[in-house]
Amino acid sequence: MNAARSRLCHYGPDAIALRGRDLVGELIGKVGFTALLYHHVTGRRASAATVAVLDAVLVTLMEHGLTPSAIAARMTLHGAPDSVQGAIAAGLLGIGDRFVGTMEGCARLLDRIVAAPAKQRAALARAIAAEHRRARRPVPGFGHNLHKPDDPRTPRLLALAGKAGVGRAHVAALRLLGRAVDAAAGRHVTINATGASAALLRGIGLEAEIMRGVAVVARAAGLLAHVAEERASPIAGDVWTAVERQFGTEAP
Amino acid sequence: MNAARSRLCHYGPDAIALRGRDLVGELIGKVGFTALLYHHVTGRRASAATVAVLDAVLVTLMEHGLTPSAIAARMTLHGAPDSVQGAIAAGLLGIGDRFVGTMEGCARLLDRIVAAPAKQRAALARAIAAEHRRARRPVPGFGHNLHKPDDPRTPRLLALAGKAGVGRAHVAALRLLGRAVDAAAGRHVTINATGASAALLRGIGLEAEIMRGVAVVARAAGLLAHVAEERASPIAGDVWTAVERQFGTEAP
Amino acid sequence: MNAARSRLCHYGPDAIALRGRDLVGELIGKVGFTALLYHHVTGRRASAATVAVLDAVLVTLMEHGLTPSAIAARMTLHGAPDSVQGAIAAGLLGIGDRFVGTMEGCARLLDRIVAAPAKQRAALARAIAAEHRRARRPVPGFGHNLHKPDDPRTPRLLALAGKAGVGRAHVAALRLLGRAVDAAAGRHVTINATGASAALLRGIGLEAEIMRGVAVVARAAGLLAHVAEERASPIAGDVWTAVERQFGTEAP
Amino acid sequence: MNAARSRLCHYGPDAIALRGRDLVGELIGKVGFTALLYHHVTGRRASAATVAVLDAVLVTLMEHGLTPSAIAARMTLHGAPDSVQGAIAAGLLGIGDRFVGTMEGCARLLDRIVAAPAKQRAALARAIAAEHRRARRPVPGFGHNLHKPDDPRTPRLLALAGKAGVGRAHVAALRLLGRAVDAAAGRHVTINATGASAALLRGIGLEAEIMRGVAVVARAAGLLAHVAEERASPIAGDVWTAVERQFGTEAP
Repeated sequence: MNAARSRLCHYGPDAIALRGRDLVGELIGKVGFTALLYHHVTGRRASAATVAVLDAVLVTLMEHGLTPSAIAARMTLHGAPDSVQGAIAAGLLGIGDRFVGTMEGCARLLDRIVAAPAKQRAALARAIAAEHRRARRPVPGFGHNLHKPDDPRTPRLLALAGKAGVGRAHVAALRLLGRAVDAAAGRHVTINATGASAALLRGIGLEAEIMRGVAVVARAAGLLAHVAEERASPIAGDVWTAVERQFGTEAP
Repeated sequence: MNAARSRLCHYGPDAIALRGRDLVGELIGKVGFTALLYHHVTGRRASAATVAVLDAVLVTLMEHGLTPSAIAARMTLHGAPDSVQGAIAAGLLGIGDRFVGTMEGCARLLDRIVAAPAKQRAALARAIAAEHRRARRPVPGFGHNLHKPDDPRTPRLLALAGKAGVGRAHVAALRLLGRAVDAAAGRHVTINATGASAALLRGIGLEAEIMRGVAVVARAAGLLAHVAEERASPIAGDVWTAVERQFGTEAP
Repeated sequence: MNAARSRLCHYGPDAIALRGRDLVGELIGKVGFTALLYHHVTGRRASAATVAVLDAVLVTLMEHGLTPSAIAARMTLHGAPDSVQGAIAAGLLGIGDRFVGTMEGCARLLDRIVAAPAKQRAALARAIAAEHRRARRPVPGFGHNLHKPDDPRTPRLLALAGKAGVGRAHVAALRLLGRAVDAAAGRHVTINATGASAALLRGIGLEAEIMRGVAVVARAAGLLAHVAEERASPIAGDVWTAVERQFGTEAP
Repeated sequence: MNAARSRLCHYGPDAIALRGRDLVGELIGKVGFTALLYHHVTGRRASAATVAVLDAVLVTLMEHGLTPSAIAARMTLHGAPDSVQGAIAAGLLGIGDRFVGTMEGCARLLDRIVAAPAKQRAALARAIAAEHRRARRPVPGFGHNLHKPDDPRTPRLLALAGKAGVGRAHVAALRLLGRAVDAAAGRHVTINATGASAALLRGIGLEAEIMRGVAVVARAAGLLAHVAEERASPIAGDVWTAVERQFGTEAP
């Protein structure tokens, strides 16, 4: 068998290397977590601008209150108090199509627009908006049931990318698409944080297919905070009681 | 019901706040992922020294090759190729007692030594070493079947803590314990990376109980790299074949 | 809020009822696990024929050696030896699109054929086979890289359904589709066990969308056997070594 | 390397065998799921009495309303609607020490009593009860915050074991322990369903260490019903809203 091999890590008794860089001599104390994450996943060194953009997305996605993920993590910790990894993993399993899937869907639309000749991009954006409207499907990366008319995170993320000089083409495509979506809807539809994140992450060269992994890492940190708070000041037992009372079968 | 509430996040249509800090105005683009992780989990602002130490531990724990976690993640991706979150979660579930549990066990021993009056610490370290030896149990944080006689990561991590001026008491306790372990064994036993990480994480005030959560976040990033590589250059199918052939039931 | 409520279970201090049946008086000792599983998931009582068919599918799907799922479970147990639930959950996470997804895809094709007027079914089956062939996609439920030219489980499952008088329409559709697939390929392509299972499970009225849940239950039992064997006679450490050596980065 | 091998399954192109029994010729259609589960996990054929007892425990543990596990599964499905396996796995991760851990703890106490000479068993039971009372720890398998003064499932399970002629020694030990717990408490404390299940599962020879795996299989079926109901009649979105409102940070 002449199988492929993993090229991520090499180690021996005296040394460990990540993608060829010596962990002890070149990485620990010299490269931050965000920069190493980028390098390790993509195989490319992270510039300061890339780190700034990725940090901004990680910070944006870390936490959003008692989300389904946070509830799942706390419920799991309640039953298995010693399994911190199980609680966090349970919360991560919900990082799926409904929320972060829109990041990937948006990234693919932006790629289509960016790949088109410059003169045809606006028309393509309009076609995409119209096509979603006809199918009564939301355009991924657009709309938010809480943050409206505008998602406050979006302008901040886009400004930051501009300042870092990163993702110009994808951010421009996102703005084009935004105008097309507004026109098709006949009203303003917010570009949400996953839409902005999609533009930024594509801007630093992350593929749509693994984008939700960035959300997984960010949210793992947020869920750890929920685990720590749940241990110190538990709510899971009361949540259980409340959910059973409000959503369980009533006594016959 | 006058139940406890989560105090991690507040949000409304126009703003999101993490532990009272405005996400858009104070965090995105201003605070890095590592610093926010620390603040969010502990409720305390991270100094530059704290960020340096936490970054070093995260970088250290991110990756170690085709570990059981990486194998589990790749196997899971093979069966469920669209579920990046499922693959990473499967890998994280193995971050349990055998490996990172030693970080927590070591942290607890260091806490005992630090809590003792200064004059009694060496004696306590000797008692701990002797007690483990009698019970034929390894002292958590000591020994490594590959990295011997010394784990190359340990001196780097301890030096970095020294330079940052963090965790003096716990690092001193670890060194005391190291001398006691060597004396009890009659030979040098390495302080491994989980031992050094335990000293550093206690040094920045993280509780033993949630320490494995730091490993979970770090390893989530490493597993994302395995997922990305597995998608680009798959090995899971060949691993399956090899494992079945070498470890499956032989034909009767 | 006038929200929906779960109607699966009602309990009070003296009694527990599942879908209105008293657990103590009507279920324990009177209804077997397979029959209750069916009733609980579908809300319909299971006839003896239904139990026979569901039991056959559960038995078929329980185990298939050192599959990716079994490897993931054993790797996870190696790192977290006390977390039996974590090991089984890790293994279950790989029960996704690649393998059991074909069961769902096949079920949907069979539904299309069954829904067509009787005279048009053969033509529809041929159209489906041709459409997949043009797109170079395998027809879900057909082909097997090991069990060829024929999957030994398939005739047994189909015979059993025939004897039980269950799923006549879906089994007939599967046979029609099989003939069409053979004709389109110009050679015999096996109907695999997931194809046969799809016909049987649709035959007892389970929806395609939750079919993989049946595989999850069956495989949970198989993975428990792997967990038990791994505890008694561990192979995970040796698997790790072998995989790292054969698939890890070679020394530079 | 002369490593151990898995002995659970052997397969070739024409046949699959589980622990040496031909899947097609000996198992499908001839052995039920519960009987095969037992045989596969333990390596021993299941008698009719064993199947009756194991079925009773599986039926007992399948469902208990909107438990933390069911809530976690529904939350996960809400975020990842296509990942039925992820939702069930998330729910299973909470089957840990707090609830089913008591089954294992109880099994170990019963083993100690059964292992003692007959004349000393009552005294040992009293010593165990007293020791837990002194440490203010509940005796595993005893007490229930809802089902009191008595858990209705317990007498049914114990009667069924008696009728099946299974687990006589462990059931007797459980009754002895029950009398000792009542005497130590000065009031009646119920033997709960996990206590009774522990006696029955030890009675059919399952080890304490893997007992929670039986709960995992049973609960996987229950969670599949929650997944099916959630798809047909969703509550997760409303649960999220209710939990955020009642347990989230209030507006400042």
